[in-house]
Amino acid sequence: MAGLLYVISGPSGVGKTSIIEGVMKKVRNVVFSVSCTTRPKRPNEVEGRDYFFVDERTFLDMVQKDEFLEWAVVHGHYYGTPRKFVEEQIQKGINVILDIDVQGATTVMKKIKDAVFVFIAPPSFDELKKRLLKRGTEKEEDMLKRLEDAKRELEQIPKFQYLIVNVDLQESIEQLTSIIVAEQLKVSRVIERLGFHKLFSIGGGST
Amino acid sequence: MAGLLYVISGPSGVGKTSIIEGVMKKVRNVVFSVSCTTRPKRPNEVEGRDYFFVDERTFLDMVQKDEFLEWAVVHGHYYGTPRKFVEEQIQKGINVILDIDVQGATTVMKKIKDAVFVFIAPPSFDELKKRLLKRGTEKEEDMLKRLEDAKRELEQIPKFQYLIVNVDLQESIEQLTSIIVAEQLKVSRVIERLGFHKLFSIGGGST
Repeated sequence: MAGLLYVISGPSGVGKTSIIEGVMKKVRNVVFSVSCTTRPKRPNEVEGRDYFFVDERTFLDMVQKDEFLEWAVVHGHYYGTPRKFVEEQIQKGINVILDIDVQGATTVMKKIKDAVFVFIAPPSFDELKKRLLKRGTEKEEDMLKRLEDAKRELEQIPKFQYLIVNVDLQESIEQLTSIIVAEQLKVSRVIERLGFHKLFSIGGGST
Repeated sequence: MAGLLYVISGPSGVGKTSIIEGVMKKVRNVVFSVSCTTRPKRPNEVEGRDYFFVDERTFLDMVQKDEFLEWAVVHGHYYGTPRKFVEEQIQKGINVILDIDVQGATTVMKKIKDAVFVFIAPPSFDELKKRLLKRGTEKEEDMLKRLEDAKRELEQIPKFQYLIVNVDLQESIEQLTSIIVAEQLKVSRVIERLGFHKLFSIGGGST
């Protein structure tokens, strides 16, 4: 059976990455898809774990070769999801988590119908501003751009299936974990996993 | 906003009651709907906590007065869900858990469209038999009847939204808890709870 694709999205600075890191420690049967980006590496980031950091020429070359499931320009940098990794995992029956921007998520919606789409929203606009300031990795100009984008991104919420308002990191981790677990318990998916025959042979045993 | 109704169902002896007891200790915003029954009280059961134990005359009188959301004859005894309690809680915005037989669950499906329906299945038919024997509260004849019924009940699984195969009690408790949490995070429900206006005013604040 095919693995499930979980697409986690939301405005920049909302806490997606921290939530996903927490979730990855709690759930066993999910792997994280590492994106490619042309944005500069932040001090705490590790190549191949957080992102594959590539130059613009390499990125555009990958675009030409149709190597991305989705790609987008976000705040002046390229971001893309390597198609091959995601497709291979899902084919092997392994569940995959994507951490992507809202634009990228809406692209994936058109391509993979039965993926699970989760939007992470800030508790308030002021809180989002505070978090971006605290991160301190952005130039003033970049930050204002991110806040402007956030407004438009929040309008996309109704296209998603689940919404987590990230008030408290631990609670958000619990919530995303619950979504991941619950989605695997949908009747059609359990039957696919166990096999229809096996499940219904339960009722066919001799008494 | 309205509360959510969670309908937990499955064959007799599958472990529904133990799973729900475990879940009630973990989730805060859910109340348990106590059913009425004419079946004899088991030693460990408490009136008003596990069931309202009533005689057949009282039960049929309640049926006449349309006081049940659903009722059914299961293994020769009457079981019914008091309508008033469920309706009042849901109106107040409180989420309600029902522990009912499969027949009762399919009745609720016709009446309450946006309830959440969870089927608890045994890992195997032999395991179900073992559990019923271990419970030791049934006459041999009753037990055989329950096993026969279980076969037919398992055929109803595709009508449900979620399926938990109760291999390990703690894991099943985690799984049902996840379903309860995740369902409250569906976009339409979060927007209803927070108010559409409030959510989207996030994006409307001044920078």
